Amino acid sequence: MSAGSVAALSGGIGGAKLALGLYRVLPPGSLTVVCNPGDDFDHLGLRVCPDTDTVLYTLAGIANPETGWGRAGETWTFMRALSDLGGETWFRLGDGDLALHVERTRRLAGGEPWSNICGDIARRLGVHARVVPACDEEVRTVVMTPDGRLAFQHYFVRDRCEPAVTGFKFEGADNARPCNAVLEALADPALRCVVVCPSNPFISIDPILSVSGMKDAIHAAGVPVLGVSPIIGGSAVKGPTAKMMRELGFDVSNRSIEQHYDGVVDAWVIDSADSSDAPEFERPVRVVPTMMRSDADKHALARAVLGFADELRSRMGWSHRGMP
Amino acid sequence: MSAGSVAALSGGIGGAKLALGLYRVLPPGSLTVVCNPGDDFDHLGLRVCPDTDTVLYTLAGIANPETGWGRAGETWTFMRALSDLGGETWFRLGDGDLALHVERTRRLAGGEPWSNICGDIARRLGVHARVVPACDEEVRTVVMTPDGRLAFQHYFVRDRCEPAVTGFKFEGADNARPCNAVLEALADPALRCVVVCPSNPFISIDPILSVSGMKDAIHAAGVPVLGVSPIIGGSAVKGPTAKMMRELGFDVSNRSIEQHYDGVVDAWVIDSADSSDAPEFERPVRVVPTMMRSDADKHALARAVLGFADELRSRMGWSHRGMP
Repeated sequence: MSAGSVAALSGGIGGAKLALGLYRVLPPGSLTVVCNPGDDFDHLGLRVCPDTDTVLYTLAGIANPETGWGRAGETWTFMRALSDLGGETWFRLGDGDLALHVERTRRLAGGEPWSNICGDIARRLGVHARVVPACDEEVRTVVMTPDGRLAFQHYFVRDRCEPAVTGFKFEGADNARPCNAVLEALADPALRCVVVCPSNPFISIDPILSVSGMKDAIHAAGVPVLGVSPIIGGSAVKGPTAKMMRELGFDVSNRSIEQHYDGVVDAWVIDSADSSDAPEFERPVRVVPTMMRSDADKHALARAVLGFADELRSRMGWSHRGMP
Repeated sequence: MSAGSVAALSGGIGGAKLALGLYRVLPPGSLTVVCNPGDDFDHLGLRVCPDTDTVLYTLAGIANPETGWGRAGETWTFMRALSDLGGETWFRLGDGDLALHVERTRRLAGGEPWSNICGDIARRLGVHARVVPACDEEVRTVVMTPDGRLAFQHYFVRDRCEPAVTGFKFEGADNARPCNAVLEALADPALRCVVVCPSNPFISIDPILSVSGMKDAIHAAGVPVLGVSPIIGGSAVKGPTAKMMRELGFDVSNRSIEQHYDGVVDAWVIDSADSSDAPEFERPVRVVPTMMRSDADKHALARAVLGFADELRSRMGWSHRGMP
């Protein structure tokens, strides 16, 4: 497998699994994970960044293995006490998790860019990868429903994705720019590929891609952009992806996913259960097991993605910029 | 013992013990505890009010019996995680305690007066007393030392009271006013007495008395103001009271305490170990055990204080305003 760096776009739990696989099979320091800013929100006066934090905790090896979000060995004294005080408890914040929210909020209030804070936190947690938000500006996913607009976490957590969706807005995206760490990762002469993790296209990856200049920067990287489809066996593994696709009038299919990412993703990795979908793709496809239950699954999928990228680079005339 | 309401001025741990005694021996709803605002501060982006919180937790029966501050059954996951992130850990905030700071900070940011929030929190914690800050405005104790000014908690917690003190300033006091709940308590026709708890005079009670209009409101109450001396056996039970008195050039004595409160306190309760001090007082004195180790000690001292107040009212021509 060739040396070189990798940039991965990731949402929360599902994306973080592949990010962990990539992190483990790549040399230390060669992965940048570009995280979804759209589900960040202010709650209880604190800035909470669920997807970024899930990636941080996952790569640091301190994620809660049962939930996929939050920290392992967490305690919940804060939430119990907050409930006694009449505070809002629909969004659960563990005691250890709170430290990240409090420290982030404090540093943001001091004017420090979120990407700096995030990079520093990753280092302090011993993560040898760059974990960065797509942008330093606030981009907020708004869920459009027949009954009006919903702030993302109200839709996602409080209302448990129950309202039908008619569309999404990414407020702030027009005025946001990819943060420096993202631009540096995409401009790295040793960049090997960009990976779009198997996250929800609408609420995890689109907010990243909505950042003004992000698609151009990805395109300008001049390396294969590989997508790992979130569809397995004709549906989504978990979360609201399939429900959203139906509500938005799409077939729940790999073909819909490919069309959704038209102009961004160059090649696809789909699950073995959907091998019959392969001929329908307009772009190159690799069929491998994509369900990530164990760490071994994550490593194997990461290796398959990287191997496919390397093949594509040689087959399609792509090369590491600046690499022999 | 006559019915009627009582207002007590209190700092943290020592004052809260007598406040608890008064709370337990008085009928529900008849005690107002006026808390020291001077040690409130902003830490980690959160408003922390140590003395008020100690009174809240103590009266709610959820205070940590070992430390006197913080909550019983507390967990410390937040502080460990914060340390891992490089955050400030010199001021220890327990996980459950954090809920109060987060909720208070959130409500203050929404423009709600601190006395309203505090009253609501007391109710939610099941406290049948009014626990209120002296004022809604910020009053901050600044400790003057030969090496310059120190913010109170930097002196008290971070520097463990080690610097010598040359004086104190109560910043904001001139522009502060007693909050409505305090004025209402002092204007209650059924008010029986005002109690100055055996707290540190300089850093616990003086910040309360420094609030513009507070001394006048206490005087206008027209009821005996009883002080329980913090001196026991010629020294202070704990904390920096005796050290401060020496550094400020006072004898560590009941006489100094009486002089310090000249014009505010009408009569004194001192400890049996200091009965020989009684003749030196200019004002009426009651000698009883004032060391509060057990709940029974607290109840007994509270009863002694209230009994003395009732005697003074009849002996000195004071009466419940509006009461027969």
